Amino acid sequence: MSSSEVRLPAGFRAAGVTAGLKASGSPDLALVVNDGPDHHAAAVFTSNRVEAAPVTWSRQVVADGRADAVVLNSGGANACTGAQGFLDTHRTAEHVAEVLGVSAGDVVVCSTGLIGELLPMDKIIAGTDAAAAALSPDGHEDAAVAIKTTDTVHKVATHAGDGWSVSGMAKGAGMLAPALATMLVVLTTDAVVDPTDLDAALRSATAVSFDRIDSDACMSTNDTVVVLASGASGVTVAREALTEALTAVSSDLARQLIGDAEGAAHDIAIEVTGAATVDDALEVARAVARNNLFKCAVFGNDPNWGRVLAAVGTTQASFDPTTLDVSMNGVQVCRSGGVGEDRALVDLTPREVHVLVDLHAGPETATVWTNDLTHDYVHENSAYST
Amino acid sequence: MSSSEVRLPAGFRAAGVTAGLKASGSPDLALVVNDGPDHHAAAVFTSNRVEAAPVTWSRQVVADGRADAVVLNSGGANACTGAQGFLDTHRTAEHVAEVLGVSAGDVVVCSTGLIGELLPMDKIIAGTDAAAAALSPDGHEDAAVAIKTTDTVHKVATHAGDGWSVSGMAKGAGMLAPALATMLVVLTTDAVVDPTDLDAALRSATAVSFDRIDSDACMSTNDTVVVLASGASGVTVAREALTEALTAVSSDLARQLIGDAEGAAHDIAIEVTGAATVDDALEVARAVARNNLFKCAVFGNDPNWGRVLAAVGTTQASFDPTTLDVSMNGVQVCRSGGVGEDRALVDLTPREVHVLVDLHAGPETATVWTNDLTHDYVHENSAYST
Repeated sequence: MSSSEVRLPAGFRAAGVTAGLKASGSPDLALVVNDGPDHHAAAVFTSNRVEAAPVTWSRQVVADGRADAVVLNSGGANACTGAQGFLDTHRTAEHVAEVLGVSAGDVVVCSTGLIGELLPMDKIIAGTDAAAAALSPDGHEDAAVAIKTTDTVHKVATHAGDGWSVSGMAKGAGMLAPALATMLVVLTTDAVVDPTDLDAALRSATAVSFDRIDSDACMSTNDTVVVLASGASGVTVAREALTEALTAVSSDLARQLIGDAEGAAHDIAIEVTGAATVDDALEVARAVARNNLFKCAVFGNDPNWGRVLAAVGTTQASFDPTTLDVSMNGVQVCRSGGVGEDRALVDLTPREVHVLVDLHAGPETATVWTNDLTHDYVHENSAYST
Repeated sequence: MSSSEVRLPAGFRAAGVTAGLKASGSPDLALVVNDGPDHHAAAVFTSNRVEAAPVTWSRQVVADGRADAVVLNSGGANACTGAQGFLDTHRTAEHVAEVLGVSAGDVVVCSTGLIGELLPMDKIIAGTDAAAAALSPDGHEDAAVAIKTTDTVHKVATHAGDGWSVSGMAKGAGMLAPALATMLVVLTTDAVVDPTDLDAALRSATAVSFDRIDSDACMSTNDTVVVLASGASGVTVAREALTEALTAVSSDLARQLIGDAEGAAHDIAIEVTGAATVDDALEVARAVARNNLFKCAVFGNDPNWGRVLAAVGTTQASFDPTTLDVSMNGVQVCRSGGVGEDRALVDLTPREVHVLVDLHAGPETATVWTNDLTHDYVHENSAYST
């Protein structure tokens, strides 16, 4: 469930403030604090080898399974900023730690925005002071708003267990690729959990949610999904239930990210069935999701299914080209690799589009969500840093 | 050298006619005939596993190193058309063979246009008759014009040896990807060559020309590059000189294809130096060439070098992120993985853009050409089949 009333689980406070990093004057600095009693944490990060300073730092922070706070800024990615960039991240963590009375080594740092510019540290420091002063159990929405970049809406979601809950906030409206994307996500739970279970549950949840959205195939330098567990509910939760809850919240947030991707006019679910393996299904779905010609056709409400087949044909998945079936919004336009129902029967005017590819090669299935390629996408991304 | 005066080498005739396949009434059927005395041929085809009927057919034709004619149509790809599509290709070859008095098994067939529609065979048959009647040693330009799809200009090139020559025609203005693209190319030479040399020279030439252009990362179902050698010059040419000549003509045509890619406003050379291997250099160059965010930025004349680094970081090539250098049109905007010269110094207004990535990991280098991602690209490709 997603709504504007998503609250933090017990044991957490958060805030979102305007530090002055964005020219727009919109909120741009968020703080999420875990007051315990537990301080368990896990995280997954971009697999981009060119990773931003805050990613390098935060990997170290969560390595021991503990984090007390997450500080996030929009308005600057602090990526490709060399040694000074890393020092700036370190200084940010140290300042937050000092204000909160925790260890700098337990402060996760996340940044998002333009690559290749140093952050204005005076504003970051003043902003963290303001955020710390504004911390509140009611601060979830404010924090979610402050991490937006080109997002048109903030994204929050929650899942209620029996006496415990998971909440989440996310930002990201472009560069949504497998292995994460310009996406920052903070998940919070008051469940009492084993740290090993927390890490395993997070990895399971992201693998079938954030890793299966691919807006434009571009992988960010800053992607971070972090989960904090306070144990404040007093309810012990097993790995299975925790995985289920984190997956529900992550899937909800992932769907919201696709729904607000830069310039998109359609949200497209690429469902691959009949695959020999899940990896085959994912490879095929991603190949279609990344095909610019197909994505332009969907923008034009054009059921150009040949572009789907051309994309499928670039993969190494098991299939016989003469047995491929493709449906678009319920119309089987391609049957046995050839012409099926009349493409004119396909209605692509709804925002949500469903493409079904049956490989007829096995029992496995996977769905990847993507967006169409639009004039607005080109516009937003041709005028971002200038 | 490319010009509008490119003529066929000795031993060849060609024609281009209007068969009525295109709604526009533009020429849409071409025929190129090798009158010998030699009838050597070699070809490379798309690596797309979903290949069009004419590709399946033509692979068989050139397998024995001989071809007497190439018939090409625009206005329909004959891809994903099942058994009937293959029968139609076969019938086309048989008809051309009958008219020319050669074997159907020596007639290469190429098609380009919309996927998933059967060809109007009555028009194809009548068109081949008209083309056969129009065959002329002066027909190179007419044939080059007849194979255009969304191309705004026809593409021809030539290279003169000592008493022999190579000429070429190409079409393709989108889906220009490695392993070829919606690209049809016919190369002709009057050199006396060994068939094994011809095949090897073609593969060498395409590997460094057509395989290094990547307009939109989309691989076609129909790509074909075929070379015919008539021996009519009487001049025997060794493999090295032949390779050099085919490479020159192929590189010229490839550059013309990039210069006329669908909707493009910039032609972008991604040069990677300091690579441990040529494969590493190519992987990095292609990753940049395929990054939609980078391509949008170039369209907006925005030297957003962070997107170059983000793309480089997705590869498995050997490099240390802290030693990467990136220059854009001569300005070193990224030095040692961090901020270099002021990005405001970069002038991206010229049509041709040069991006230089130095991996500092070895002696190898490679250049891949691509285009920017523009409003016109989205427009052309969202309204193609409707």
